[in-house]
Amino acid sequence: MDAMRMEAFLRVCVILLLLTTACLVRFDSQTSLIFPSYSRTASFRDMNALFVLVFIDIAAAGYNLIQLVIRCMLISSPQKQDMRGSYKHLAWFSFLLDQAVVYMIFATNSASLMASVYALNGEHHLFWMKLCSKFNRFCTQIGGALLCGYVAFLLMAVVSFLSAYGLFRHYSPKTFLVLK
Amino acid sequence: MDAMRMEAFLRVCVILLLLTTACLVRFDSQTSLIFPSYSRTASFRDMNALFVLVFIDIAAAGYNLIQLVIRCMLISSPQKQDMRGSYKHLAWFSFLLDQAVVYMIFATNSASLMASVYALNGEHHLFWMKLCSKFNRFCTQIGGALLCGYVAFLLMAVVSFLSAYGLFRHYSPKTFLVLK
Repeated sequence: MDAMRMEAFLRVCVILLLLTTACLVRFDSQTSLIFPSYSRTASFRDMNALFVLVFIDIAAAGYNLIQLVIRCMLISSPQKQDMRGSYKHLAWFSFLLDQAVVYMIFATNSASLMASVYALNGEHHLFWMKLCSKFNRFCTQIGGALLCGYVAFLLMAVVSFLSAYGLFRHYSPKTFLVLK
Repeated sequence: MDAMRMEAFLRVCVILLLLTTACLVRFDSQTSLIFPSYSRTASFRDMNALFVLVFIDIAAAGYNLIQLVIRCMLISSPQKQDMRGSYKHLAWFSFLLDQAVVYMIFATNSASLMASVYALNGEHHLFWMKLCSKFNRFCTQIGGALLCGYVAFLLMAVVSFLSAYGLFRHYSPKTFLVLK
């Protein structure tokens, strides 16, 4: 039960961090002069990586909220969870979904980081101009959001270890995929 | 032991796929006219995402080769592996490294995919030009390499599940982090 309470606490932290990341990216905007007599407003819509990041982070926070509600119901329910019954299916289901969510968070964060590195440095081989020199405050805020997102990923990875541990320790160490 | 043989087979597949990806990206080059009177050769060095991809894929293939050698030694060794001895540390070590490697493969693939989408479509908000219209064959080969890389990631994810299963099923289902 100790592992379950730790998992619930980590999920609350993950939800808060994911929502912080999504808000930081979503409400980031800056207007700046790019060429003389041509000004532009930068927002998260300009880069599809950031657009996808906001969407995935909100979806992952929602998923963790649902898991948290299920966990609370399990902790408060009086009868013992039996691994041979429906609880086994729930454990497998949440193990696979946790894995998928942690990979999604990591991939969207890394793709956004990649896009941000191009925006920061440009890529003169490809004639892509650097943009962070024009949108300084915008880029700093995105950097903070990505840092937040990576912390959320690390906590979510620990959650996925805990759910793998919670599932697999019910299996026999001798024969393959047989419950104890 | 069945799970161990399956893991060894999957690791061989992963090594072959990772090396294919690395070679496809490394030896991809095409010379094309970008502006009239200005021609350029595209290679994996033009995009730092692709450069990192080649490096990480070769490192991950090397890691899997080392794991394979260790597995072969364990299968052929006559005495029983005892979870209370040094085998426990090896299992924890390879579990954590497997997790790290699978995340690295996924992140570098996703970052390269992101960079490739920018090269394919450009990003007119950021004045980044599309380049795949000029380097058609080059981009198709990179696409094939990324497909190969994602298959390698999926197999490696199954390997990491197996190593988590192999570790955690030795733990007690009643008390937290106590061996059976």
